[in-house]
Amino acid sequence: MSGSTYGKVFTISTFGESHGKAVGVVVDGVTPGVELGEQDIQKDLDRRRPGQSSVTTPRREADAVHIMSGVFEGKTTGTPVMMIVYNENQRSKDYDDIKDLFRPGHADYTYSVKYDNRDYRGSGRASGRETIGRVAAGAVAKKLLAAKGIKILASTKNIGGVRAEKYCPDEIEKNIVRTADPDAAPQMIDLIHKSIEVENSIGGIVECRISGVPAGVGEPVFDKLDAELAKAALSIGGVKAIEFGAGFAAAKMTGKEHSDEMDSTGFKSNNAGGIIGGISNGNEIVFRIAVKPTSSISRPQNTIDLNGREVVCETRGRHDPCLCPRIVPVLEAMSAIVLIDLIKQNAALQY
Amino acid sequence: MSGSTYGKVFTISTFGESHGKAVGVVVDGVTPGVELGEQDIQKDLDRRRPGQSSVTTPRREADAVHIMSGVFEGKTTGTPVMMIVYNENQRSKDYDDIKDLFRPGHADYTYSVKYDNRDYRGSGRASGRETIGRVAAGAVAKKLLAAKGIKILASTKNIGGVRAEKYCPDEIEKNIVRTADPDAAPQMIDLIHKSIEVENSIGGIVECRISGVPAGVGEPVFDKLDAELAKAALSIGGVKAIEFGAGFAAAKMTGKEHSDEMDSTGFKSNNAGGIIGGISNGNEIVFRIAVKPTSSISRPQNTIDLNGREVVCETRGRHDPCLCPRIVPVLEAMSAIVLIDLIKQNAALQY
Amino acid sequence: MSGSTYGKVFTISTFGESHGKAVGVVVDGVTPGVELGEQDIQKDLDRRRPGQSSVTTPRREADAVHIMSGVFEGKTTGTPVMMIVYNENQRSKDYDDIKDLFRPGHADYTYSVKYDNRDYRGSGRASGRETIGRVAAGAVAKKLLAAKGIKILASTKNIGGVRAEKYCPDEIEKNIVRTADPDAAPQMIDLIHKSIEVENSIGGIVECRISGVPAGVGEPVFDKLDAELAKAALSIGGVKAIEFGAGFAAAKMTGKEHSDEMDSTGFKSNNAGGIIGGISNGNEIVFRIAVKPTSSISRPQNTIDLNGREVVCETRGRHDPCLCPRIVPVLEAMSAIVLIDLIKQNAALQY
Amino acid sequence: MSGSTYGKVFTISTFGESHGKAVGVVVDGVTPGVELGEQDIQKDLDRRRPGQSSVTTPRREADAVHIMSGVFEGKTTGTPVMMIVYNENQRSKDYDDIKDLFRPGHADYTYSVKYDNRDYRGSGRASGRETIGRVAAGAVAKKLLAAKGIKILASTKNIGGVRAEKYCPDEIEKNIVRTADPDAAPQMIDLIHKSIEVENSIGGIVECRISGVPAGVGEPVFDKLDAELAKAALSIGGVKAIEFGAGFAAAKMTGKEHSDEMDSTGFKSNNAGGIIGGISNGNEIVFRIAVKPTSSISRPQNTIDLNGREVVCETRGRHDPCLCPRIVPVLEAMSAIVLIDLIKQNAALQY
Repeated sequence: MSGSTYGKVFTISTFGESHGKAVGVVVDGVTPGVELGEQDIQKDLDRRRPGQSSVTTPRREADAVHIMSGVFEGKTTGTPVMMIVYNENQRSKDYDDIKDLFRPGHADYTYSVKYDNRDYRGSGRASGRETIGRVAAGAVAKKLLAAKGIKILASTKNIGGVRAEKYCPDEIEKNIVRTADPDAAPQMIDLIHKSIEVENSIGGIVECRISGVPAGVGEPVFDKLDAELAKAALSIGGVKAIEFGAGFAAAKMTGKEHSDEMDSTGFKSNNAGGIIGGISNGNEIVFRIAVKPTSSISRPQNTIDLNGREVVCETRGRHDPCLCPRIVPVLEAMSAIVLIDLIKQNAALQY
Repeated sequence: MSGSTYGKVFTISTFGESHGKAVGVVVDGVTPGVELGEQDIQKDLDRRRPGQSSVTTPRREADAVHIMSGVFEGKTTGTPVMMIVYNENQRSKDYDDIKDLFRPGHADYTYSVKYDNRDYRGSGRASGRETIGRVAAGAVAKKLLAAKGIKILASTKNIGGVRAEKYCPDEIEKNIVRTADPDAAPQMIDLIHKSIEVENSIGGIVECRISGVPAGVGEPVFDKLDAELAKAALSIGGVKAIEFGAGFAAAKMTGKEHSDEMDSTGFKSNNAGGIIGGISNGNEIVFRIAVKPTSSISRPQNTIDLNGREVVCETRGRHDPCLCPRIVPVLEAMSAIVLIDLIKQNAALQY
Repeated sequence: MSGSTYGKVFTISTFGESHGKAVGVVVDGVTPGVELGEQDIQKDLDRRRPGQSSVTTPRREADAVHIMSGVFEGKTTGTPVMMIVYNENQRSKDYDDIKDLFRPGHADYTYSVKYDNRDYRGSGRASGRETIGRVAAGAVAKKLLAAKGIKILASTKNIGGVRAEKYCPDEIEKNIVRTADPDAAPQMIDLIHKSIEVENSIGGIVECRISGVPAGVGEPVFDKLDAELAKAALSIGGVKAIEFGAGFAAAKMTGKEHSDEMDSTGFKSNNAGGIIGGISNGNEIVFRIAVKPTSSISRPQNTIDLNGREVVCETRGRHDPCLCPRIVPVLEAMSAIVLIDLIKQNAALQY
Repeated sequence: MSGSTYGKVFTISTFGESHGKAVGVVVDGVTPGVELGEQDIQKDLDRRRPGQSSVTTPRREADAVHIMSGVFEGKTTGTPVMMIVYNENQRSKDYDDIKDLFRPGHADYTYSVKYDNRDYRGSGRASGRETIGRVAAGAVAKKLLAAKGIKILASTKNIGGVRAEKYCPDEIEKNIVRTADPDAAPQMIDLIHKSIEVENSIGGIVECRISGVPAGVGEPVFDKLDAELAKAALSIGGVKAIEFGAGFAAAKMTGKEHSDEMDSTGFKSNNAGGIIGGISNGNEIVFRIAVKPTSSISRPQNTIDLNGREVVCETRGRHDPCLCPRIVPVLEAMSAIVLIDLIKQNAALQY
């Protein structure tokens, strides 16, 4: 299957460009008989939505989802669930002055070379709006996982060096940066506001924790749980790294330190991040992703135009100063999709 | 396709357990008419082979490869290339005392839960020997890539905190830890030797650099080049993290700092690691993986047995004190497989 | 990928139920830079449309297609093309008296058992309306094939025993049964009209001929050209058989008779139907499918209801007396999808 | 995945050429904990073996199978099962006089064009020996199906016009043409012997019946049970057609005749061949394939050589006069592979 389709037995196919008519997704392989309504999807889309706070882009879009198939009398039928969000706030003229040049950090150059054309309006397919389909599909996946007692929570771990030290899951949705440390939130917000003032942007780290996954999920030797989560996370625009459990810190550790010893109550530590040999071990699954600073900044940057001439680029438009708060629901969605796909694959193996 | 198969149009299917009769791979989708002999494969297998130096396991196995199909009169035919290495040095009795317990850090527990059985001899399928099939397939992929001017070089970047500062590619194969910094090599080797003395092991970081990849490789939005490289790398046993270009450091950078500006000669920096929007941009592709310290150490560790009773585990056997030197060819192999698969997918898209 | 997705590098994912909000398809892997407009799609949808003549169902639906993504400034961008047709003529009350019973010949029983639910309105996902997505995707595929000089033409070969003896391709669209034999057309039409009168339906045979396919298309040993065409054809509702070239007649032939001998001008016969060893041989590709008589007839039929009680079923509604005329464009569409996918796969193999 | 891999969750990858070192298969997705030994596989390979009777090729090969992985202590482990048969009886010189020309009916021409090379020894990859991997994988699949009460039996239905009228399943393995009609067997054998005398070959029809399949197997709308069986059957060399239930006869039937009515005991007929809407309905699954007459005949045939010059071809070698008796186990194998893959996919959907 081609690049916009993911999953073997729970399969999603996304479509749509930032300023095209619509964005959305077809989800196939959904367990029949599950209650599903638009409100289940909208809830997560609202967390991804632009214009939700002072640290996100001021663009305002309702992003109202419509379920077009696969649900009958309030329940999934087992046939493909198509969900669509019609694009509304399309100020294409915002992009007139950048349509002939390659914005640094954006996929403008690579899309132009690969496809020999470019939908310059809001980055076209390379826009963050593409993640609407992911979040909608992820909401379906979460619904299936919840019935199995599995819960996924992502939160902002670090913005520009300001680090969340505490982990209070109930706090995440109470602050606009979606961090689990209420003490770090004001500093993070402050740092983002300062970035806006100086027409710059800032990077960060998002952590994802998944509880309730039974041991045994993951399909070695290639479709390991961590391998699939890594692919899914890195496929999100702006994500440049991922680490599980102790992650890069493992490079300085000894075997004695890193190995999670066991006693009769289970594992005594979780340096592995809940995955050994590519298979869940029953522990909490923990991983972190590095999110690059938004490439769309108003400061002048050097680049070239379609003819190779050197020009200066100033990206006006309306952009997010830091991607972390809005990536949180996207990372949860992709994690949910990976998990339900592998859980269903394991069911097939065992049958 | 199931978990031991990777790739859409250049497809590899590996098989084999550590102490079974053989390990190997079927490679399908190989361009016809390419010269291929066992020496092309053996070269890389010898770099992966145990017993090659004082920093690897003292087990000695020739790991001689046999091409069983897909090559006729010295050239590939376009049909599946099957390559096999017969297992020889099978001291199964080494594993008698660990067959009823879960070695910490190993996949013993997760395999037992998932498959409800366990080939305890040398970790069975979860053994590093499984990578023989990957390296053999990777050697075929490298052959195809070389014809397109693409070169892949991995090297040890860091062992236990000792960091390679210089990058001298010609030095990599001249030292037994496979680092590109000849000054750091003695310190790294020393650190590993000390780990052996204290019956412990040590983690590290391996870096991979790929040159000659034209802009345009990668299939958004899921099968992005970085997403597939991440999956491939994380599917290697012992790998716990990956970062591209600036990687985790991006969390502290601003957009102005991170974006790679362009002038008429190309990109002026490479914080993106050669990939933007999931597509190669023509720059060198650069990423690093974190390798955990080997779990097999002789020091006593606490664990439980198959009946849940607490026991002490001392892994005698013959093991690598640090995985980095032998992971280098495996990472190159997986990178080559990812690249040729995506390059061929792009050819299909454009046709 | 799940059951509603087909194709490896040219991938289609269809969605939608007969009486849901919409039906449609996401097509991924479309060559960028190809001119594509809604009129290209509508043309084939109009050939599939109900209500087009006295031998099709009298239901009238415009089935107007909307391209929602993947096209920019009149050309394909290389990103997924989503096409949707909103359902309009939804007389769900037509189905009130059949919602609790299993109509003979229909998928009512099998869907109920498999999914433990049933969208009884117009057969739900099992409706012929599902083929709208196929025809739309096929129109895109045909566009790509036409640029390579490949032409696909299906026509009605036999209805209820009345056989087309001549093959005049220009005549196909000139008669309402879409046969290539203008002399047989009136008899075929007459036979269908008689079926309507007696509240019955009638089966038939549709033939497909494809010209311009170069030798070399097809991916042995499983994804052979004939194997994929067979899968694609049999996946169309109502199709119960397929034969290539001499087909079932080969059972009575000798090797000397069946083998297509060659001379310097090419093959001297075409018993193989243009495919040998699963690969196109440059000859015209010829195959035929058997189409069962429509299951929806007004005559009373014995069946059971959801509780297993014996009941009599009289399917009122508005139905096609013979599926052949409307299956013609669907078979062409599926053939086009198979061909472009395999042609692109071959390009990947050779690259 | 490439062309030599089949199946989504029960995945087989075959390899090997007729006169290469070996042929075989990797089977992934095998349920763990199932007893499996080489005798389980050998039994079916012996039914496929050349030299078994006066109606098959006189070549004699033991075709002894070796299980190289995926089985530990007599049970499957859930990891890939690799099975190999080493080629022994390689009389490559038999092929010297045909290596520069295209034998009519063979894949010589299409392989030469597609791959721009040709392993002329015994047809290379296009040889019937390729089916050894299929039969071995099928034996594993049959083992899994037997545990679910599913039984697959193929038999010769027709040879050169001599038709099996009775269906006595116990008789199939008692005659060398593998027909279920003991009265037709002598005539069929006689017809084949006459073909041998006149240096010709003869076609036929093989029927497959599958009992014990529960209703609900098949993944609409593309991976329908009949669609997958059709693909699998047509992927076998020499198969040119397939029909389910009433098959091509449906073209002359009315809806009233063809629809299988139901009463409280189930279906009253089986014109559908056990599949409606692409999903098994609980009835016996019945389909027939047309097998072309062997292309390898000793009679002179006109053809061209690699340079396009007209030549006469006389295929000496040692060949089957009729493929049916040896295709029987291959068709069973492919049917078993399709079924277990779809049954496992259904388990994934429902989970």
